[in-house]
Amino acid sequence: VAEPPGDPLADRYADRARAMTVSEVRALFAVAARPDVISLAGGMPFVQALPGDEVLRVVADVVGSQAAVALQYGPGTGHAGLRARLAGLMAEDGIEADPDHTVVTVGAQQALDLLGKLFIEPGDQVAVEAPSYVGALSAFSVYQPRYLQITMDDDGLIVDELEDALAGGARPKFLYVCPNFHNPAGVTLSLERRRRLVEVCRAAEVPIIEDNPYGMLRFEGEPLPALRSLDPANVIYLGTLSKIFCPGIRVGWVLASPPVIERLIRFKEAADLCSSNLNMLVAEAWLSEPERWRGSLTGLIDVYRSRRDAALSALQRYFPEGSRWTHPAGGFYVWVQVPGMDSRALLPSAVEHKVAYVPGTAFYPDGRGVDRVRLAYCYPPEDAIQEGIRRLGELVARPVAGAAAPGSVAR
Amino acid sequence: VAEPPGDPLADRYADRARAMTVSEVRALFAVAARPDVISLAGGMPFVQALPGDEVLRVVADVVGSQAAVALQYGPGTGHAGLRARLAGLMAEDGIEADPDHTVVTVGAQQALDLLGKLFIEPGDQVAVEAPSYVGALSAFSVYQPRYLQITMDDDGLIVDELEDALAGGARPKFLYVCPNFHNPAGVTLSLERRRRLVEVCRAAEVPIIEDNPYGMLRFEGEPLPALRSLDPANVIYLGTLSKIFCPGIRVGWVLASPPVIERLIRFKEAADLCSSNLNMLVAEAWLSEPERWRGSLTGLIDVYRSRRDAALSALQRYFPEGSRWTHPAGGFYVWVQVPGMDSRALLPSAVEHKVAYVPGTAFYPDGRGVDRVRLAYCYPPEDAIQEGIRRLGELVARPVAGAAAPGSVAR
Repeated sequence: VAEPPGDPLADRYADRARAMTVSEVRALFAVAARPDVISLAGGMPFVQALPGDEVLRVVADVVGSQAAVALQYGPGTGHAGLRARLAGLMAEDGIEADPDHTVVTVGAQQALDLLGKLFIEPGDQVAVEAPSYVGALSAFSVYQPRYLQITMDDDGLIVDELEDALAGGARPKFLYVCPNFHNPAGVTLSLERRRRLVEVCRAAEVPIIEDNPYGMLRFEGEPLPALRSLDPANVIYLGTLSKIFCPGIRVGWVLASPPVIERLIRFKEAADLCSSNLNMLVAEAWLSEPERWRGSLTGLIDVYRSRRDAALSALQRYFPEGSRWTHPAGGFYVWVQVPGMDSRALLPSAVEHKVAYVPGTAFYPDGRGVDRVRLAYCYPPEDAIQEGIRRLGELVARPVAGAAAPGSVAR
Repeated sequence: VAEPPGDPLADRYADRARAMTVSEVRALFAVAARPDVISLAGGMPFVQALPGDEVLRVVADVVGSQAAVALQYGPGTGHAGLRARLAGLMAEDGIEADPDHTVVTVGAQQALDLLGKLFIEPGDQVAVEAPSYVGALSAFSVYQPRYLQITMDDDGLIVDELEDALAGGARPKFLYVCPNFHNPAGVTLSLERRRRLVEVCRAAEVPIIEDNPYGMLRFEGEPLPALRSLDPANVIYLGTLSKIFCPGIRVGWVLASPPVIERLIRFKEAADLCSSNLNMLVAEAWLSEPERWRGSLTGLIDVYRSRRDAALSALQRYFPEGSRWTHPAGGFYVWVQVPGMDSRALLPSAVEHKVAYVPGTAFYPDGRGVDRVRLAYCYPPEDAIQEGIRRLGELVARPVAGAAAPGSVAR
């Protein structure tokens, strides 16, 4: 980590400041912002597909008719009307949610921070999928845990591996999982594993944090039950409107048992007093007309499905033999493995060739994943996705100086 | 602190969860929300005085013409156009601010959380004014510091007392101060003390966190230079639009040296990825027409000055002999001492008599302040302020069962 030189406060910072490396997310933003680069890097929702006139009408209605509330401080728990709507959303996932057991957060990201704050002492063990959402690793790492990484396959987290680790004495404070259309892996936890996972975690008294940003963006197949619906007492559930509506209003939430919620509210208030009333009222209003938000969601799903198809067919066409990738049934990401590739070393030449991605190493706390990349197909149009994957395919097919020999590639 | 019973996770929480007591802020919201209670408790800005049509026009313009940005994720540092406007605001305070040394936060409250995270290890000492903003104490307390409390008088923090503590071996990680129209004390740090304070802190290598939410709400007299303008290298400056525009968009910011900013950005991204683009664009647009926002600010100042006058004349009229209170030249609060009063014990009967306030003890980490109350005159109209203070005056004039004897009142 490069540090600015000559910092007079260098010896004043808490240890956790040293645990924080330069943000991968920020570096990606800088690259993705260059208009000539095809970015398969950031997971930006394609908000252009939203019905702009309808959004404008909702926002203008809120400010026009509820200004005294919209412009004021709100409760730390979040606006009650919105929490009721969010409970309705969760009901679609088979979750019986009491709005009073829900806290509105600044995206689900803030819920991850608050949960890290609540559970993690330096040195505590937390269990995560390998790979895991980079933002969850950043949020937790502030609190200096040790990670227990559980491998995934095409059916999601390998529950046997978790069970073995628990039998071997692992005592994680919690398990963090993303069961639907995983970021970055693109896979979905199977029904059988969901049932096993909640049993194993309950028996071991390991609470589960279930992060479900993409669950409503299903392209095909039948929805699977949320972990929270299978074991309400032991699962903390995170949701967000960032992918089914828009991230610009920063509305996420957490559903948990009353003692956890009580503590999260205290931390939320200490962290930022309350979320934006304007944003919460806009979210509530958006969700108040089912035909509008469902129609808009159907449109988004159609866009993302076409882009997923474009990405998969381009991978088939342009990537070298021996490459493997997942087949996401929803969400934003496909996870690609090219044996022998050094995805970090390759990134500068990729950007030179006007295509960007996230190296696999970003999604593990320990440097694994060097032969993987995450490709996000959510934002660019189909032809750009295909051209970007064509450029990348050319690059990964070339031998890279200093690349590891195939035998040395980590699982 | 009452904890919910039967919590299966009770032994899983980090120590910092035990440091968090039930929120005073939340309790106040519940009381203030009752329409029959005159609330002199919460510091809610009187957003009804904003020009509603103008706000609506700004918000509709942003969504109508910049939807693809407003609805999208933004950079963790905050929207660049807004940071340029904020630098312009700080210039009015005599501060030369580089927008690149500024991070937009969710109100200034988030900046307090991020700074606590950056500096405080459990057991570290931090210096604060006594009394201090309750939200700053909440934000810092998450990180489990010990507090060095420096007393205030009518000229603000008593610099001699800080100097004595430093000479006696105190080594605080930072000093947190609110120099203008202090919350809760209503006093302003004198020019002479500002100059002394920055010298003393520089010599002792104690960085200053200067929190300035109310500085632009001056009713009379001349502005005093910001601490940041007196010693840019050693002062971290916090601002907010909550009081000069509105809190519903949750826009605050922090200005600091590049090494501190670099670290705050990492923590900000880990905490919530980014602030709301919609809110940041609304803030930028609001600040882009000086006549509009200055006109609106002048209107707000007139409202608050009248309410301050109403509060002070009512105190004069209705409070018992021996009471003392500050004379705020700006801001939201008057700080009242009634020797012998137990302000915590009195609160339930006050609410019964349909008036609310914040007991002085909320503003100290150690139970001091039992004979003080903070009265916020920002929200209720003049007649309600006077009636509220009349009711309160009646109550404090009565002997309270179990009240401390005058001799036992802490300074």
